[in-house]
Amino acid sequence: MKRIGVGLLGFGTVGGGVYNALQSQEDVILKRTETLFEVRSILVKEKEKERAVKGVQSLITTDFDRVLEAGVEVIVEAIGGTEPARMYVERALEAGCHVVTANKELMAKHGVQLERLARDRKVQILYEASVGGGIPVLGTMGHFLKANRVHRISGILNGTTNYILTRMSREGVSFAEVLAEAQQKGYAEADPAADVDGFDAVYKLAVLCRLAFETEVPVGQILREGIRDITPEELELARKLGYAVKLLATGEQYGEKGPVSLGVGPTLLPLSHPLAGVDGVYNAIHLEGDVVGDVTLVGRGAGEKPTASAVVEDLCNLYRLPSPRLPLSGEPLLLPAGEAGGSRFIFMKLRDREVPEPEQLCRSLEGIGLEVVDAVSAHGGVAFILRRWDPSHTSIVVTEPGLELSRITSRPIQGVNLSQERQPEMEGVV
Amino acid sequence: MKRIGVGLLGFGTVGGGVYNALQSQEDVILKRTETLFEVRSILVKEKEKERAVKGVQSLITTDFDRVLEAGVEVIVEAIGGTEPARMYVERALEAGCHVVTANKELMAKHGVQLERLARDRKVQILYEASVGGGIPVLGTMGHFLKANRVHRISGILNGTTNYILTRMSREGVSFAEVLAEAQQKGYAEADPAADVDGFDAVYKLAVLCRLAFETEVPVGQILREGIRDITPEELELARKLGYAVKLLATGEQYGEKGPVSLGVGPTLLPLSHPLAGVDGVYNAIHLEGDVVGDVTLVGRGAGEKPTASAVVEDLCNLYRLPSPRLPLSGEPLLLPAGEAGGSRFIFMKLRDREVPEPEQLCRSLEGIGLEVVDAVSAHGGVAFILRRWDPSHTSIVVTEPGLELSRITSRPIQGVNLSQERQPEMEGVV
Ligand SMILES: NC(=O)c1ccc[n+]([C@@H]2O[C@H](COP(=O)([O-])OP(=O)(O)OC[C@H]3O[C@@H](n4cnc5c(N)ncnc54)[C@H](OP(=O)(O)O)[C@@H]3O)[C@@H](O)[C@H]2O)c1
Ligand SMILES: NC(=O)c1ccc[n+]([C@@H]2O[C@H](COP(=O)([O-])OP(=O)(O)OC[C@H]3O[C@@H](n4cnc5c(N)ncnc54)[C@H](OP(=O)(O)O)[C@@H]3O)[C@@H](O)[C@H]2O)c1
Repeated sequence: MKRIGVGLLGFGTVGGGVYNALQSQEDVILKRTETLFEVRSILVKEKEKERAVKGVQSLITTDFDRVLEAGVEVIVEAIGGTEPARMYVERALEAGCHVVTANKELMAKHGVQLERLARDRKVQILYEASVGGGIPVLGTMGHFLKANRVHRISGILNGTTNYILTRMSREGVSFAEVLAEAQQKGYAEADPAADVDGFDAVYKLAVLCRLAFETEVPVGQILREGIRDITPEELELARKLGYAVKLLATGEQYGEKGPVSLGVGPTLLPLSHPLAGVDGVYNAIHLEGDVVGDVTLVGRGAGEKPTASAVVEDLCNLYRLPSPRLPLSGEPLLLPAGEAGGSRFIFMKLRDREVPEPEQLCRSLEGIGLEVVDAVSAHGGVAFILRRWDPSHTSIVVTEPGLELSRITSRPIQGVNLSQERQPEMEGVV
Repeated sequence: MKRIGVGLLGFGTVGGGVYNALQSQEDVILKRTETLFEVRSILVKEKEKERAVKGVQSLITTDFDRVLEAGVEVIVEAIGGTEPARMYVERALEAGCHVVTANKELMAKHGVQLERLARDRKVQILYEASVGGGIPVLGTMGHFLKANRVHRISGILNGTTNYILTRMSREGVSFAEVLAEAQQKGYAEADPAADVDGFDAVYKLAVLCRLAFETEVPVGQILREGIRDITPEELELARKLGYAVKLLATGEQYGEKGPVSLGVGPTLLPLSHPLAGVDGVYNAIHLEGDVVGDVTLVGRGAGEKPTASAVVEDLCNLYRLPSPRLPLSGEPLLLPAGEAGGSRFIFMKLRDREVPEPEQLCRSLEGIGLEVVDAVSAHGGVAFILRRWDPSHTSIVVTEPGLELSRITSRPIQGVNLSQERQPEMEGVV
C-alpha cells in the first residue's frame, strides 16, 4: 500500500466534496489502486468560517506555505478564478507536486504555460473536473481517441443555462423568471454573468479544443453570445419547426493544423440530434473523429459529487496513466464561427397585430431570392429557416416583406444538412 | 520510433477495417505514440477469395503457425465465434503475444480464463471493440471509474434491433417488414437470431458486468427476450403514455459483492431518459456510479470504421495504459431480472371490436386492487401502466376485466420512479 499526502486548496463545494469522496471511497480506491490518499492540509480564505465537514479544523490554514510543508505530493486546487489560484498552482508544480484542478478559467487562460512547467518539473497536471464535471471527456480524448483526428466538437457545457432553457421551453416562462427562481434555490449564482453570458462555456471550449486540435486557443477571441435575449416564444416556434435551442459550444478544425472556428452561442439542433434531448442540468459533449465517427458523452456537468468524482479519478490516474503529451502548434488561424453558408433560423417578433401566414411570407422571401426550408408562426411571432445564410440577408429579411418588427434574432443550425433531407441517425450500416 | 509487428486473424468487415485504419492513421499514431504498427500476416479461411483491400495477397495465409512466425508482437482477432478463435487467442497469449479482439461471444464465454492466461504470461488482452463498437465504454469503466462503485448499467447494445425498433416506431411498419428490408440492404444478417433474439446483447452485457461488478457472469443464465413479438401498435401506445420501447440490457448489483440481476429484453424508458432518444444504429450505455452519478456514452455500435477505431485505439493503449486488474469474486447470486416490485407496462390486443375506454378499464382494475398510473387505447389495443407489478397480476389482468384478448405483453419500465412523480433530469443542483 502506498500512502499519498494531499493538500487541498479551497474547501467549498468542490474541495469539501473531494474530502468527502476520499473518505467514502477509501476502501474501493485502496482495493483497486493499492493507494491511500490522505488529506494533510487545507487552505481556505476565512479560517474561522464554520465548515459543513467535521473534524478538519486542525488541517485548516490560510497560509499556502503550511500546505507545502505538510508532506504532500499532490495539490488539489479548488479555489477558482485566476489569482491567487494560478500562483499557488505554479508554486506547487515548482515544488515538485502533481496538481489536480477543477478550474476551467485557470486552464483556459494559463493552461499552456502550466503544462509546460509541469513537464519541465516532471510532474503532472490533470484537470478533468474543469470541463463537464463528472463526464470523463478529457480522458476520453487523451486516451481513447489517440488514433483519431477529432475535427469537430460540440457541447452543452453549462448546466445553469441548460436548466434555464429547459424550463423556459417546457413551461413557457421567461428567462428573467426562471433565472430569479434558480438564483433563489441556489442553482444559479447571484451574479449570473459567467453562466448566462457564456464565459463559463467559453473557458471549457478553449480547454477542449486545445487538447483536440493540438493548438493554442486564444480565449479572448472566441465568439461568445449568451442566452439573455431568448424568449419562450422563440423556443416554441423552433420546436414546431423540429429544433431544440441550446447554448452550444462548437469548435471545428479544417484540416490538420488548419484554421479553426470556435464559438459559444444559442444554436438550433434538430430534435433527433444526440444533444437535442440533453435537458436540465446535464452536460454533453459530441466529438467527431475521422475513424470512430461520432461519440457523445452525457452526464452531470457540475455539483459536489460529480465534480469531486472527476478530481478523485484524476488522483487515481496520476500514478497510473501516462500524461498525454501536448504537441501544440502555435496559435491557429481563427475563422469567424457561424459564417456564411450554413442554414439559419430567423425569429421575428412583430409589432403588427396581424402575423402573416407562413406560406405568404415564404413566397415573399422566395420572390427576393432567399430559399426558405420551413416556416411557422404563433403569438405575434414568425420563424423560418433559410437554407443558406449570408449576413447580408439580414437587411433583406428586415425590409423586404414590409413587416413591422419589434425584434429579430438569427441563430445557426447544427447537426443537419438541409440540402440533403435525409435523417442523419438512420444512415450507415449496422 | 518503435515498430510493432501485428498479425490479423480474419480479414472481413473488422479485420479489413483495422488494416485500412492502420494505413490511414499511420501518421497521427506515429506523431502521438511514436509507434508504427505493421501488419505482417493475415489469417483467413479462404485463401483464394477476392479481397477489397489491395496489395495484401502476400500477407494472406490459412495457417495460424505462419502468423506466429511472422515476427508479430500483437494478434488482432477478428474471426468471430468461439472456435477456432478461442484456440488461436490462447495460443497467441501462450506465445507471449498481446491480443486485441472484437469478439464479444469469446470474451463473454471465455474471458475470465483468457484474462488469467494473459496475466500469467505477462501480456495484455484488450477488447474494447467487443462492446459498443467505437464507444470507449470498457476503457471508461477501467480507467475513469476506478474510484466509483458502478452499481447499475443499462445499455442499448445492439444496433440492428435498435434500427428495427426505430423504423417500426417512426413508420408504423411491422417487425417482419423492416427486418426483410434490413436484410436486403445488408444491415441485418440472413440469420438474424443473434441480433433479434438478444444473444449479441447478452454477450456484451456479460462483458460489461464482469468488469463493472468484478464478478464472474454466467452467460447462460442471463434472462433473454428478443423483439420478435413487438408490434407497431404497442410502440405507438407506449409512446402515447410517454415511453420509448428499447431492447435494453440491464445489470444491477445490490451492495458490494452482493447479488446481481442481469437481463436483456424489451423495456420501456420515459421519453426524457438519456437512452430513450438513442435511435437508429446508435448504441448507448448508461452507467451509474456512487459518486459520479450517471454517465451516458453514445456512439456507433458497429460498422467497419467505428469497430476498427476501437481496435486500433486498443493497439495504441497496449503500450501505454496499465492493464486493469480483474479481482473477480466468483459467481454471484443471480436474481431474476424484472422481478416483482417495479412498475410494468401492459399491452393487450383485443379480439373484441370494441375497446374499453381507458378510464373504464382503470376503474375495473383498481376495483380489484391494482394501481393503474396511466392508460391509453387505440387500434383495437389497450395499454396501461401498473405502479407495482407482481407476476401473479397476469392472471388478474387477463381474467377480471372480462375482455377477449388476442395477446398480452408485459414489459418492465426503467429510469423512472413512478411512486415519486418528479422529472428525474430536473433534479440536482447545477
Ligand atoms: N461547484 C461546482 O459544481 C464546480 C464544478 C466544476 C468545477 N468547479 C470549479 O471548481 C472551483 C471551485 O469551485 P467551488 O464551487 O468549490 O467554489 P466555492 O464553493 O466558492 O469554494 C471556494 C473555496 O476557495 C476558498 N478560497 C477562495 N479564495 C481564496 C483565497 N484567496 N485563498 C485561499 N482560499 C480561497 C474559499 O475559502 P472559504 O471557504 O474560507 O471561503 C472556499 O473554500 C472553481 O474553479 C469552479 O469553477 C466547480
Ligand atoms: N462487423 C461489425 O460491425 C462488428 C462490430 C463489433 C464487433 N464485431 C466482431 O468482430 C468479429 C469479426 O466480425 P466481422 O464482421 O469482421 O466478420 P466477417 O466480416 O464475417 O469476417 C470474418 C473473417 O474471419 C475469417 N474466418 C472465418 N472463419 C475462419 C477460420 N476458421 N479460420 C481463419 N479465418 C476465418 C474470414 O475469412 P474469409 O475472408 O476467408 O471468409 C473473414 O475474413 C466478430 O467477433 C464480431 O462479433 C463485428
